[in-house]
Amino acid sequence: MKPIHVGLLGVGTVGSGTYTVLKRNQQEITRRTGRNIIIRMIADLDQEKARALVAGDDVVVTSDALEIARHPDIDIIVELIGGQAIAKQAILEAITHGKHVITANKALLANHGNEIFAAAQQRNVIVAFEAAVAGGIPIIKALREGLAANRIEWIAGIINGTSNFILSEMRVKGLDFSTVLASAQQLGYAEADPTYDIEGIDAAHKITIMAALAFGIPVRFDQTYIEGITKLANDDIRYAEELGYRIKLLGITKRTTNGIELRVHPALIPVKRLIANVEGVMNAIIVKGDAVGPTLYYGAGAGAEPTASAVIADLVDVTRLLTSSPEHRVPVLAFLPELLSDTPIIPMEAVETAYYLRLQVTDKPGVLADITRILADSEISISAMIQKEHADGEDKVNIIMLLHKTREKNINTAIEKIQNLPAMADKIIRIRLEELGS
Amino acid sequence: MKPIHVGLLGVGTVGSGTYTVLKRNQQEITRRTGRNIIIRMIADLDQEKARALVAGDDVVVTSDALEIARHPDIDIIVELIGGQAIAKQAILEAITHGKHVITANKALLANHGNEIFAAAQQRNVIVAFEAAVAGGIPIIKALREGLAANRIEWIAGIINGTSNFILSEMRVKGLDFSTVLASAQQLGYAEADPTYDIEGIDAAHKITIMAALAFGIPVRFDQTYIEGITKLANDDIRYAEELGYRIKLLGITKRTTNGIELRVHPALIPVKRLIANVEGVMNAIIVKGDAVGPTLYYGAGAGAEPTASAVIADLVDVTRLLTSSPEHRVPVLAFLPELLSDTPIIPMEAVETAYYLRLQVTDKPGVLADITRILADSEISISAMIQKEHADGEDKVNIIMLLHKTREKNINTAIEKIQNLPAMADKIIRIRLEELGS
Repeated sequence: MKPIHVGLLGVGTVGSGTYTVLKRNQQEITRRTGRNIIIRMIADLDQEKARALVAGDDVVVTSDALEIARHPDIDIIVELIGGQAIAKQAILEAITHGKHVITANKALLANHGNEIFAAAQQRNVIVAFEAAVAGGIPIIKALREGLAANRIEWIAGIINGTSNFILSEMRVKGLDFSTVLASAQQLGYAEADPTYDIEGIDAAHKITIMAALAFGIPVRFDQTYIEGITKLANDDIRYAEELGYRIKLLGITKRTTNGIELRVHPALIPVKRLIANVEGVMNAIIVKGDAVGPTLYYGAGAGAEPTASAVIADLVDVTRLLTSSPEHRVPVLAFLPELLSDTPIIPMEAVETAYYLRLQVTDKPGVLADITRILADSEISISAMIQKEHADGEDKVNIIMLLHKTREKNINTAIEKIQNLPAMADKIIRIRLEELGS
Repeated sequence: MKPIHVGLLGVGTVGSGTYTVLKRNQQEITRRTGRNIIIRMIADLDQEKARALVAGDDVVVTSDALEIARHPDIDIIVELIGGQAIAKQAILEAITHGKHVITANKALLANHGNEIFAAAQQRNVIVAFEAAVAGGIPIIKALREGLAANRIEWIAGIINGTSNFILSEMRVKGLDFSTVLASAQQLGYAEADPTYDIEGIDAAHKITIMAALAFGIPVRFDQTYIEGITKLANDDIRYAEELGYRIKLLGITKRTTNGIELRVHPALIPVKRLIANVEGVMNAIIVKGDAVGPTLYYGAGAGAEPTASAVIADLVDVTRLLTSSPEHRVPVLAFLPELLSDTPIIPMEAVETAYYLRLQVTDKPGVLADITRILADSEISISAMIQKEHADGEDKVNIIMLLHKTREKNINTAIEKIQNLPAMADKIIRIRLEELGS
């Protein structure tokens, strides 16, 4: 049978990894598919780098991604350029020319996925993106196929390796955020401009895509609540630990009677949960289905070969499907496009979670009474409290509270009132708490 | 489009769960598939139970599984009868009549899978079995599709909930095996005849199936090394803990240059590994691929609805594929049948692992010298050792050793020699140790 001809756009880390793994495991992969998958053309501005990669192989190298996107010999393009301008143009051009598309570009899908999926549906081609979420972990496949029996209730995941690495280092070494960030940058675990990772934007791209798959809704990145890890103090990591919790940056999406929650923020998780023990650059995602209960998926969320693993899994899937009838393909967003639903995203103010608060107060009699009064008036109840002297012997104490579930709007109002008490010595620290238990 | 007509064989726990979940989530599932999946016929010896389940629905109930296997209105049969006699007959009859088959019957597949898969290939029908391994965890799909880019190196899994529950209880409550087994039976976590679970046979069925998928080999249950948990003493669980390890019953399969390891036995795992913290009836499987590295899959390994989740995922897959061309279906064992390889299974004697030993010795001078001499002569090196007084003040001490990797045959010989030393007061305890690190 005629081999599948692939055009590879971009030979950065993931592109090079994809070429390498596909070549190394060609025999093993052909045992699975019965059909050779061959990279015939590569586009990269750095043509020398591309030529060094394919040395001796029969591969056409060009600097023009659009040339490949239009080329009649190519069945599938693999977009690993990144960014949104050229990547989007190349993908839409390939779709127009009836080619199937595989991409790892979460930022592009989060921002322009609806447009790209619509174009693909119109031209009856596949857009596959296992590599866009959590690297090598086959979470897209699990959501789209493995858990197809379920009404998905919620997803919570550690889906940004850089920020998880930073949080692990802060906890284990007792260092503060900026120190760890600097060393992470030196080690290559954080980019020169780490904004997307540490501000939660990358995680938001991914949770947005997963929410679409889980609930059969369009991609709604612009409605995602996003809070990063830049303001986390080492003190809070330590106090959380004393209380039996670990702080992780989570992407969370949840189906409720009022709509869908979609949010990224640091959260305390009970240490006894498996996901609380996911350390370093690793990723893990819990999916809660009504029939299956919670399932967890863990692995490398980034890196050349783990991400290549996901890209090639998509290549295998598309290869298997290429001659089958389109109406029986796995729908790109798990649900049939015409049956996507319009369930609203819940504004963060209406979301209910539990909370950890740290209040720094001057040690005046009556301040605790004032605080608990405000909380009681807001119908917020306290599940645990500890009081800590300041180490430096200042006239301040730390009061740490765990609060039962309440609405974000409610806690915002209460925090504002407490902050205005004259005894408050500093800004109140507020971190959400997720039991992840049911 | 005409709905898919399903015949359900058996309405025990999983059969009832499948009916219930399919009905409850029909709308959600149809959103995914675009085609209704309807259970049209049910076979069970207990027809009253079946009728109570389908009350009011348009379903034919019979006591004859073969009637359904032959019935021209049925597209797919779901075999949830269990056992090997009738189940096998019904599956082969359905295949003969050109029907696709979904089964959760790991014992049947482990023992007769090769025959069943060959029959299915000849008649060009699908046999799907996501529910046969690890309940609701979509591990078959991960192995067959999600990790298709990889050369799989090894798999290690907690794949029997009953034995994991027993080990958890032994550790947490400090109880011995028989006490915990009795209470597990009362709680319904262990069957009246728990042999398959506690002797490792059920786990062996599952690891055998996974090995076939991972390496593209036939199902080879008869060559699996099997050791259960019945001889584990609470002392060893405690000592392992002191050394930083937890004892789990693992199913392990590994590709080596000499062939494939295939084994089930208790093993120490570093407590810091995620899988060491999988407690109670939950299942978890690590798959190590050459590109993706280790990935872990966790969830409920049994129960009505978790297992139904896997059965229905298969129903969705088969529904999606039913009108597509056969040559592009996912091969039943992940690899094309004509390309299955004949890689040998390595006999347990040739397998290399690390070991934990507990030696009970009368406290004579020189005994430790004798022991370490024997180990040194066998070229086995010690990585850690602790010595414990017997609590009851007897003239015996426990010597606990962690040994570096060596061949099973080698350790067997050394243990035999050590056992013959006059100072040995009791039988030597030997448990394998798996780092699961790379």
